[in-house]
Amino acid sequence: MLIVQKYGGSSVATPERIKRVAKRVVDGYKAGNKMVVVVSAMGDTTDELIDLMKKVTSKPVEREVDMLLSTGEQISIALLSMAINDLGCKVISLTGAQAGVKTNNVHNKAKIIDINVQRLQSELNKGNIVVVAGFQGVSEKNEITTLGRGGSDTSAVALAAALKADLCEIYTDVDGVYTADPRVVPDASKLKYVSHDEMLEFASLGAQVLHPRSVELAKLYNMPIAVRSSFDFNTDGTIVQEVSNMEKELVVSGVAYDDNVARIGLYDVPDKPGIASKIFRALANKNIDVDMIIQSAVRNNVNDISFTIARDDLQKALSVVEEIQDKVGFSRYAHDEDVSKVSIIGSGMVSNPGVAATMFEALADEGINIEMITTSEIKVSCVVKSRHAVQAVRAIHKKFELDAIS
Amino acid sequence: MLIVQKYGGSSVATPERIKRVAKRVVDGYKAGNKMVVVVSAMGDTTDELIDLMKKVTSKPVEREVDMLLSTGEQISIALLSMAINDLGCKVISLTGAQAGVKTNNVHNKAKIIDINVQRLQSELNKGNIVVVAGFQGVSEKNEITTLGRGGSDTSAVALAAALKADLCEIYTDVDGVYTADPRVVPDASKLKYVSHDEMLEFASLGAQVLHPRSVELAKLYNMPIAVRSSFDFNTDGTIVQEVSNMEKELVVSGVAYDDNVARIGLYDVPDKPGIASKIFRALANKNIDVDMIIQSAVRNNVNDISFTIARDDLQKALSVVEEIQDKVGFSRYAHDEDVSKVSIIGSGMVSNPGVAATMFEALADEGINIEMITTSEIKVSCVVKSRHAVQAVRAIHKKFELDAIS
Repeated sequence: MLIVQKYGGSSVATPERIKRVAKRVVDGYKAGNKMVVVVSAMGDTTDELIDLMKKVTSKPVEREVDMLLSTGEQISIALLSMAINDLGCKVISLTGAQAGVKTNNVHNKAKIIDINVQRLQSELNKGNIVVVAGFQGVSEKNEITTLGRGGSDTSAVALAAALKADLCEIYTDVDGVYTADPRVVPDASKLKYVSHDEMLEFASLGAQVLHPRSVELAKLYNMPIAVRSSFDFNTDGTIVQEVSNMEKELVVSGVAYDDNVARIGLYDVPDKPGIASKIFRALANKNIDVDMIIQSAVRNNVNDISFTIARDDLQKALSVVEEIQDKVGFSRYAHDEDVSKVSIIGSGMVSNPGVAATMFEALADEGINIEMITTSEIKVSCVVKSRHAVQAVRAIHKKFELDAIS
Repeated sequence: MLIVQKYGGSSVATPERIKRVAKRVVDGYKAGNKMVVVVSAMGDTTDELIDLMKKVTSKPVEREVDMLLSTGEQISIALLSMAINDLGCKVISLTGAQAGVKTNNVHNKAKIIDINVQRLQSELNKGNIVVVAGFQGVSEKNEITTLGRGGSDTSAVALAAALKADLCEIYTDVDGVYTADPRVVPDASKLKYVSHDEMLEFASLGAQVLHPRSVELAKLYNMPIAVRSSFDFNTDGTIVQEVSNMEKELVVSGVAYDDNVARIGLYDVPDKPGIASKIFRALANKNIDVDMIIQSAVRNNVNDISFTIARDDLQKALSVVEEIQDKVGFSRYAHDEDVSKVSIIGSGMVSNPGVAATMFEALADEGINIEMITTSEIKVSCVVKSRHAVQAVRAIHKKFELDAIS
């Protein structure tokens, strides 16, 4: 098998942890696999470099930020390679540029446009374990670039896709994807499998196991990702991959909730073409992400429009709303920041009518009022009062018997 | 003018010093010069990386050491570029690889084989100050290499030569080259000029202002080097360049001494061909550098051979001598580690007979016995008892009136 593994900054934060990761990599190699290992900068290295930078300038040049920060991963790959070499295995480290990770020229948040795998393949064919600096690449202008948030996960998935690897393993702080946040639902089950789409929904709901960017890439190339604990290598994690027939029996994979929600209602909005676009364009222009949108049925040529946004954006959104009130012509507006979004996620629900109804029943049984509902092919979300959110999650989790899966 | 400046690790050890160096560079740029700036790693960065490495492995892989250590200079160039940008000048940083510094593939002590100046020229033509990572290059195999001891000085001189710069300024801990060590001879004068050959002799005598490797390269390309203080930019330093007619009036440029000396004498060595080669080949095989060699006149088909070595090598040398005694056939040997070497250096002495005699007179006036003498075209060295070394330096310095030059 050709396996790409990725270890985050906390996994390589100290010399001891680096040696531990080396041992893990060597185990995979000695089991007969070809190994490519992507690493992040050690622990707080990136933050320390940024602190140092702030002492030099308050207006850092983006290109030079990449020149600076890319050293963090370069240190990690050199040290990990030495630790692997100590265990008697052939190994070589490659910077993003040496590994052929070609990006566009957007510094600090570059996008990978291609990976030239020639050098990587040649090192693998020589029997080397290849340790690659995550988070970085090289532009067409031969400039060092960094990939921004989620960069190292994205490096790993992109390398796995380019090398047609059999598996991409991401070692992280959590040991897998659960049917619900174990802090909220103590008997939540760890999922053996989730689909890429489900993983994207989990990520967008705040379960930041994998950066959505890396999941999207994995989906595009149909690359399975194993999410595993970097603190306990013996635990099986969760595999993110397209759902097999067998797995489709699981109608709902998990229950998630998001507290960072606020609702805004606009009342007596004239029912004319172009009105909705005026409202949401104005919000988009201020970089406010709108999540759920509900439009009531028309009465007397007016209707009501409700939408949710991140609670952090509420004040900004309210000033937009105030600004456009006359132009759009709604009579009044209101907001509620005491709301949360509870969602069920599952690829199986598309072919299982009644899933949404089961969710609503669970809430009704608890006497919880539903303020807004949206549905997609793999998700049903309800807005409820925040004080009911945890109760709602537990009730839904129980109703779908998610504690019973194994 | 096109000026290459080099700042060592202590010159960029803190954010404040980086900003100070930025100001200095910008002054040169605003005066209308094209500026290329070579920097070392900040202060103790390299030592810190080595400490970190030792916690991971006791047998570091040479290639990965270069991968690791080259990050030190990369951090410096990014920060210095940001500081220069803050002063409103166009600037770009380049790693050794980006700057076209091609080396052989000998990790940790690579030699520069060529510099492809295309990118450098193009950045200079765009009006950029170019900040280059010293100490590093890239091999034909696209591997990061480091140049070993004296590496950043060598980078600077090599870049200056390749760019046909008008001047190469090396900013260092001392403010120039003196006629003697000012700690020994308080009224030592700073030299305005020394030749490359003189500088090489000064360096080999322990006055480590410039690494001999960089001086040799400067000599080869006839590149003038200005040695200046990184702590006081207003002080004129010393210019290392081929001696002009005017300067040849200075017969002796300086007096140096070296305490790291031991003398070994072999007595009653048979006067046969091949004997000397046996002795010194045996020492060379143990990596012992022999400095002065004196052979006495032959009496009764035997003679005496004395030589000096670094005092640190004495025990190693004595075991070699003991080992070869039977094979070479000398009757006995002795050693003296209480000796020092005092030298006068000057390009002018070749055409000035009597210089050596003047030196011997100075020693005789002080009642100092000379144990060994060697001469070259630009140097006369005497071995004296160590307890007389400082007295000898002062007397010679005074005799040649070196305190009176300006």
